[in-house]
Amino acid sequence: MKLAELAAYLGCPVEGNAEVEIHGVAPLQQAGPGELSFVEGEKFYPLLKVTRAEALILGPKVPTPDIPCLRTEHPRLIFARALELFYRPVHPAPGIHPTAILGNNVRLGQDVHLGAHVVVADDVVLGDGVIVYPNCTLYQGVRVGAHTVIHANCAIQERTEIGSDCVFQSGAVIGAEGFGFVPTADGSWYKMQQSGHVVLGDRVEVGANTTIDRPAIGETRISNGVKIDNQVMIGHGVQVGENSLLVSQVGLAGGAKIGRNVILAGQVGVADHINVGDRVIASAKTGIPGDVEAGMVISGYPALPNAVWRRASAIYRRLPELYQTIRTLQRQVADLQSRLGTDTHPDP
Amino acid sequence: MKLAELAAYLGCPVEGNAEVEIHGVAPLQQAGPGELSFVEGEKFYPLLKVTRAEALILGPKVPTPDIPCLRTEHPRLIFARALELFYRPVHPAPGIHPTAILGNNVRLGQDVHLGAHVVVADDVVLGDGVIVYPNCTLYQGVRVGAHTVIHANCAIQERTEIGSDCVFQSGAVIGAEGFGFVPTADGSWYKMQQSGHVVLGDRVEVGANTTIDRPAIGETRISNGVKIDNQVMIGHGVQVGENSLLVSQVGLAGGAKIGRNVILAGQVGVADHINVGDRVIASAKTGIPGDVEAGMVISGYPALPNAVWRRASAIYRRLPELYQTIRTLQRQVADLQSRLGTDTHPDP
Amino acid sequence: MKLAELAAYLGCPVEGNAEVEIHGVAPLQQAGPGELSFVEGEKFYPLLKVTRAEALILGPKVPTPDIPCLRTEHPRLIFARALELFYRPVHPAPGIHPTAILGNNVRLGQDVHLGAHVVVADDVVLGDGVIVYPNCTLYQGVRVGAHTVIHANCAIQERTEIGSDCVFQSGAVIGAEGFGFVPTADGSWYKMQQSGHVVLGDRVEVGANTTIDRPAIGETRISNGVKIDNQVMIGHGVQVGENSLLVSQVGLAGGAKIGRNVILAGQVGVADHINVGDRVIASAKTGIPGDVEAGMVISGYPALPNAVWRRASAIYRRLPELYQTIRTLQRQVADLQSRLGTDTHPDP
Repeated sequence: MKLAELAAYLGCPVEGNAEVEIHGVAPLQQAGPGELSFVEGEKFYPLLKVTRAEALILGPKVPTPDIPCLRTEHPRLIFARALELFYRPVHPAPGIHPTAILGNNVRLGQDVHLGAHVVVADDVVLGDGVIVYPNCTLYQGVRVGAHTVIHANCAIQERTEIGSDCVFQSGAVIGAEGFGFVPTADGSWYKMQQSGHVVLGDRVEVGANTTIDRPAIGETRISNGVKIDNQVMIGHGVQVGENSLLVSQVGLAGGAKIGRNVILAGQVGVADHINVGDRVIASAKTGIPGDVEAGMVISGYPALPNAVWRRASAIYRRLPELYQTIRTLQRQVADLQSRLGTDTHPDP
Repeated sequence: MKLAELAAYLGCPVEGNAEVEIHGVAPLQQAGPGELSFVEGEKFYPLLKVTRAEALILGPKVPTPDIPCLRTEHPRLIFARALELFYRPVHPAPGIHPTAILGNNVRLGQDVHLGAHVVVADDVVLGDGVIVYPNCTLYQGVRVGAHTVIHANCAIQERTEIGSDCVFQSGAVIGAEGFGFVPTADGSWYKMQQSGHVVLGDRVEVGANTTIDRPAIGETRISNGVKIDNQVMIGHGVQVGENSLLVSQVGLAGGAKIGRNVILAGQVGVADHINVGDRVIASAKTGIPGDVEAGMVISGYPALPNAVWRRASAIYRRLPELYQTIRTLQRQVADLQSRLGTDTHPDP
Repeated sequence: MKLAELAAYLGCPVEGNAEVEIHGVAPLQQAGPGELSFVEGEKFYPLLKVTRAEALILGPKVPTPDIPCLRTEHPRLIFARALELFYRPVHPAPGIHPTAILGNNVRLGQDVHLGAHVVVADDVVLGDGVIVYPNCTLYQGVRVGAHTVIHANCAIQERTEIGSDCVFQSGAVIGAEGFGFVPTADGSWYKMQQSGHVVLGDRVEVGANTTIDRPAIGETRISNGVKIDNQVMIGHGVQVGENSLLVSQVGLAGGAKIGRNVILAGQVGVADHINVGDRVIASAKTGIPGDVEAGMVISGYPALPNAVWRRASAIYRRLPELYQTIRTLQRQVADLQSRLGTDTHPDP
C-alpha cells in the first residue's frame, strides 16, 4: 500500500514522499524498510534520526524527520487504525467442535464457534458470532451477547449476563461466589450464600486471570465500554460505570461503586461500599479507604489529592534531615531560654 | 412463606404485621413486594423510609420502620440464614461424565460427580459427595474429603490433601511448585525441587484464581475453617491457623506462620518466615515485615499499630506545611541568636 | 545411602559419624531417624539441640551439633542438590493422550507428552521431550523448546515462542492481548490491536496464574534464566534481562525494561516504559515510578534508596511526637520573641 493511500484512509496529510510502499508496522527501534512506526513523546525524538522505518506517524510537535510522515493531533489513535490494516486477530471459523459438550436447552445464534473441550451447561444462550475458545466452562443460565469472544480456559459461572462485542482474555473467572462470610460467636465464619449474578454491558474487555464475583443478593454490574486489565479483582456487588479503565492488579472490595470514565492505575485498592466519582484518576498503588469526589486525581495510601501527595512524599524522603533540624532547634531554643532566664510562659 | 414462619425459623421476634408473605430476598434499594431485606449500618438508615421491601431484618439500634421487621442482635447472620431458605447453589447430580478421564487406582466415594473433561490422575481418592466441575485437573495422589466442591478449571497438583466440606472457586491452583531458587556464583538460579505437599483442613474456602504452593520439604498447611478470597497467593511452607480470613490479593511469602482467627484485608503482604499471632487484624495494603504479637491491629508499611499509623498518616498529609513551619522556626531562632550575641552553647 | 556417600557426592566434609544411613530429607522440626535437614540462619540454632534429624547440612558459622553434619559455605545450594537424590518430580511418560486435539501442521519432537484434553492449534511446534499437562490450550503458531514442561490449565496464546527447559506452573496465561486502549473524544476507548508476540528464553520458570501479555507491535521478551513466581503480571512490550527474579504479585506495566539479575520482591510495581538497571533489588511493595540505576537497593513508594527509606520510615512512625515538638518550639520561640521585643527580621 502506498503511503498516499494510507494517508487518505486515515485522513492525515503526508509530509515527504507519498509514493513509498508500506507493508507493515513495527516499533521505532525495530522498524525497517516498508514498515510504518509512530512517535508520540519527546523521549523518542533521538530515535527519529536513526530509525530505519519507511515512514512515521507523528504528533504535532515532533520535529520533522528525514523520512516521510503522516502528521496528526492523535498519533496513537491514528496508529491504532493503521495497525488494523496490517493485523487483525484470526479467530476460528464458525462451528461446534465435536468434543464440545452442550447441556439441555442451550440456544445458539448464527455462526457461533465453540472450541474443543468447551463445556456449556443447561439453559445457556449465546448470540450470533460468539466465539468460545477451548477448555472454557459456561455454567447454567449464562447469556452472552453477539460477537463476544471468550478466550481459552475461562470459567463463566451461573447466571452471568454478558453483552455484545466483549472480549475475555484467557483464564478469566466471572460470576464465582462472592467472599461473604459472617463472623459467629465461636470465631468460625458462616457462609452467606451468593444468590446474585454478574451483569456486563457491551464492549467490555476483561483481562487474563481477572475475577469478577457475584453477590449474595442483587448484581455485580460492569457498564458498557469498561476495560479491565489482567489479574483485576472485582468483589461482589461492585458497580463500575461506563468507560472506566481498571489497570492490572486493581482490587475493588464488595459493594464499591465506581463512576464513569474513572481510571484506576495498577495495584490500586478500593475499600468496600465506597463511592468513587466520575472521572476520578488514581495513580498506581493508591489505596482508597473512603468516598472520592468526581474529577479528583488521587495518590498514596490513604489516598490524598495527587498534588498534596507529591509534596508530602517529597518531604517524606527528607524526614531524617528534618528530624535533625528539629533536634537542633530544640537545643538552640533551650540555650536561648537559659540565657534569658526563667521562661515566663512555661509549656503546659 | 409468612413472615411469622420465617421469624419462628430464625428465632427472632416480629415487629408489625407477621402475616405478610415473603417469597425472596433482595438488596434494600432493589427489594419490592414480597421481598425481605436487611439493614445493619447507619449509612442505610435513610433508605428505611423509601424501601419497597415487604419486611426487613434489623439490628438492635435501627429505627423502627413503617414495614414489618425482624429484630436481632446479629442481622447479617440472621439474613444469611434467611437467604438459604430462598437460594441454595444447584450442583450437578452424582455421576461421572463420559468425557472425564480417570487414571489407575482412583478411589471414588458414594455420589461423586465428575464433570465433563475432568482429568483425574493415578492414585486419587475422592470422598462421598465430592463435586468436581468441568475442565479441572487433579494430579497424582490427590485426596479430597467428603462433600468438597471444586469449581471449573482448577488444577490440584500432586499429593495435595483436602479436607471435607471445602469449596474451591474456579481457576484455583493448589500444590504447584514453590518458588524455590538458590543463587549461584554465576548469577543464575539453582532450582530447589519441591518434594512437599499442601494440606487443607475441613471447611476451607479458596477463591477464584488463588494459588497455594507446595514446599521443598514438609507441607503447606491451611487449617480448618480458613476462608481465602480470590487471587490470594500462599507461598511454600506457609501455615494458616483455624478460622483465619485472607481477603483478596493477599500475599504470604514462604514459611510465614499465620495464627488463628487472623484477618488480613485486601492486598496485605507478609514477609517470609514471619509469625503473625492469633487474632491479628491487618487493614488493607499493610506490609508485614516482622513478627506481630497476638491481638494487634496493624496498618501501613512497614506495619505499625493501627492507632499510630492513623495519627502518623494524618500528619503525613501536612508535611509540606510542617516543613514551612520548621523553616520559619530556623529563621526566627537565628534572628533571636543574632540579637542575643554569640551562642554560648554552639551546636556540634 | 550412607552419609559418607552423600558427602562424597556433594563434595562436603563430614563432621561426626559418616556411617549413618540417610533415606530422606525433612524440615528441621519434623525430621526424624534417617532424615537429613539443614540449618542456615541463627533463628534456627535453638533447634539444633532438639532436632531428631539423623544428620544436618550446616553453614560455616553454625555451632557443631551432637549429630553428624556436612559443613559447607553454601548450605542451601548443597541441600538443594541433596534433595534431588531423594525426590524428582514424576512426569507422565511420552505419548499423546487420545483426547488431545491437534490442529493442522503441528510438528512434534521425540518423546513429547500431551495430556488428556490438551488442545493444540495449527502450526504449533513442540521440541523433544516437551510435556503438556491436561486441559492446556496452545494457540496457533506457538513454538516450545525441548524439555519444557507446561502444567495443567495453561493457555499459551498465538505466536508465543518458548525456549527449552522452561517450566510453566498451572494456570499461567502467556501471549494474551496487551492492555492497549486509546482514549477518544467521546470518553470511550479505542482498542489497539495486539499484533506482537511473547518470546521467552531458556530455563525460564513461570508461576501459577501468572500472565505475560503480547504487545501491539514487536515483542515482550523474557530472557534466559528468568524466574517468575505466581500471579505476576507482565505487561505488553516488557523486557526482562537474564536471571532476574520476579516474586509473587509483582506487576510490570507496558514497555518496562528490567535489567539482568534484578530482584523484585513481592507486590512490587513498575510503571510503564521505565528502565530498571542490572542487579537492582526492590524490597516488597516497592513502587517504581521512574528509572533506577544499576545496583541500587530500593524500597517504598515512590521508591527511595533502601537506607533512606529505612530512616524515613522509622521517623514516620514518630510523626505525631515530632508534630508536638514543633508546636512546642513555636510557642517557645514566640515567648522568646515577646520577651526580646519587636523582631528586627520579620518573616516574609
